[in-house]
Amino acid sequence: MIRVAIDAMGGDFGPEPLVAGIVAALESKKFSALLVGNSKIIKPLIPTNLLKYIEFIEASEAISMEDGATEALKRKESTIFKAVDLVKNGLADAVVSAGHSGATMSLATLRLGRLKGVSRPAIATLMPNSKSSSTLVLDVGANVDCKSEHLFQFAVMGEAYAKEILKRNTPKIGLLSNGEEKSKGNEVSKEAYELISKLDNFTGNAEGGQVFDGSVDVVVCDGFIGNILLKTSEGVAEAITKIIKQEVKRSPMAIAGSVLMKKVFSRLKKQISYDEYGGAPLLGVNGCVIISHGKSNAKAMKNAIFQAINFADSNINKVIEQELSKHIKS
Amino acid sequence: MIRVAIDAMGGDFGPEPLVAGIVAALESKKFSALLVGNSKIIKPLIPTNLLKYIEFIEASEAISMEDGATEALKRKESTIFKAVDLVKNGLADAVVSAGHSGATMSLATLRLGRLKGVSRPAIATLMPNSKSSSTLVLDVGANVDCKSEHLFQFAVMGEAYAKEILKRNTPKIGLLSNGEEKSKGNEVSKEAYELISKLDNFTGNAEGGQVFDGSVDVVVCDGFIGNILLKTSEGVAEAITKIIKQEVKRSPMAIAGSVLMKKVFSRLKKQISYDEYGGAPLLGVNGCVIISHGKSNAKAMKNAIFQAINFADSNINKVIEQELSKHIKS
Repeated sequence: MIRVAIDAMGGDFGPEPLVAGIVAALESKKFSALLVGNSKIIKPLIPTNLLKYIEFIEASEAISMEDGATEALKRKESTIFKAVDLVKNGLADAVVSAGHSGATMSLATLRLGRLKGVSRPAIATLMPNSKSSSTLVLDVGANVDCKSEHLFQFAVMGEAYAKEILKRNTPKIGLLSNGEEKSKGNEVSKEAYELISKLDNFTGNAEGGQVFDGSVDVVVCDGFIGNILLKTSEGVAEAITKIIKQEVKRSPMAIAGSVLMKKVFSRLKKQISYDEYGGAPLLGVNGCVIISHGKSNAKAMKNAIFQAINFADSNINKVIEQELSKHIKS
Repeated sequence: MIRVAIDAMGGDFGPEPLVAGIVAALESKKFSALLVGNSKIIKPLIPTNLLKYIEFIEASEAISMEDGATEALKRKESTIFKAVDLVKNGLADAVVSAGHSGATMSLATLRLGRLKGVSRPAIATLMPNSKSSSTLVLDVGANVDCKSEHLFQFAVMGEAYAKEILKRNTPKIGLLSNGEEKSKGNEVSKEAYELISKLDNFTGNAEGGQVFDGSVDVVVCDGFIGNILLKTSEGVAEAITKIIKQEVKRSPMAIAGSVLMKKVFSRLKKQISYDEYGGAPLLGVNGCVIISHGKSNAKAMKNAIFQAINFADSNINKVIEQELSKHIKS
């Protein structure tokens, strides 16, 4: 049984939604849950019949969003520190945290170490596309200044995730750029283009829109741009929703129409909301780490746990090391 | 009367929609139109009562999308070259082109020269936001690798455009970054933050979503990221439209609902479509240049011409030079 360490206190809304997600996950899949936090608060939230799958690890401190990531490294009594160390010490197979993402990333990188051949771990995220599928984008925030070799490593890690976890045998890898033509790009991306060309599944430059039309499976970029892409897409979706709501209010006919279209909008909302996708895997560290959205609801938490189980159950880290060693040799 | 030189042959769909836009513009505003292209093709498309406002300038060549921008510089018989040179020679006050945007930009920069204090002209574009207004984003493609001083110049130019053309007295200027906090950013953007802080209207870092919520008036970024932001936003809007259409088809009730909501969707479409905004001003060159979308329809062309007229009628280029000279002195 896969053992998942979970920071049960992190997240913007406290332990309730997180624990609700853990309970939902345990109800549909058997795994061993190691809940890190204050058991006095967490335990009462769990149905007694599920307690046999759960172990409580006491941790008194929570790292708040105001804390710096480097400061977090010293906080040995914090939930994130203890959860990560369960993986480090071989007591858990994976870790999930909806707490301070910078702290989770730094702690995971420093305590678990990097995979062989990886200079910088990357945060990957699944974005919904119009083909009822999803596109993996990485990096979305871990590394703001990247060199071409980092982007190459992200491509290798993204390809491995697409193959091993998403089960896409020949995933199309695109390099985010300001045009599809090979001549497009900035200094770093043009260099990266040459490096990533070594991968059979590389399909060339991808424009911003290709993240959402399903024409590629993996999109590679640095974390500065990845964050902007993520926030831009959320912003556009919110603006469209807001405009529709404002316009609907202007006419009784439109209000009636919106009632009839309720299911359409709820399906759309489901398709584009992050909670369907769980969390963001941190790729390149020597372990399985899922970084969840600070605003995770129960469903997001449940899906993040399933992601962690799939991750721990896969060969992805071995595949990443093998792939990278091939290209270092050549 | 303002004299606008227009490349009447460029654009993906040939002269018809462009000339239709010119005709529509002339029908609601009086200006002198200098149409560059093959008059044998263009003239028959124009109602005789408007011919008195039009002068035809023959140009035999069109620069195709396959041509390189540098090659275009040598093509003296091309429509774009001739249209830009009308401004250079004082025969026109502004130029509008829906042709090869790279060629338009290079020709405008080299033939008209840069404003004093500007190292690199930038393409600015208006993006719709949920406050029924628009946000100016620059650069969206002219400069892929930027230094902090270039971003500072973009901020000054964007502020001048917002004041002089959009008539916003105290426009909020944001620097696109991976978080709102001052500590966020990559190497170049952090340096730029310090420089742009000299501007009174600078409100700090802006996230991708802020382009669409109306919390800032001007968003500054390099052209690589600007292009990605633009294409991302178009891609998200298209994906949402596609998902709604797919979902509507699944139920007769939803189809009925969508009929009742028809006006809402057409208003949404109007609010987010680029043709309402015309073209993209090229800021920083010694003249008034509007670069239109290659896929411009008549409405987009009409609005681009109005933009050109407003631009030519304003003091923006003088204001940019004055602002920049202040900061060079200090």
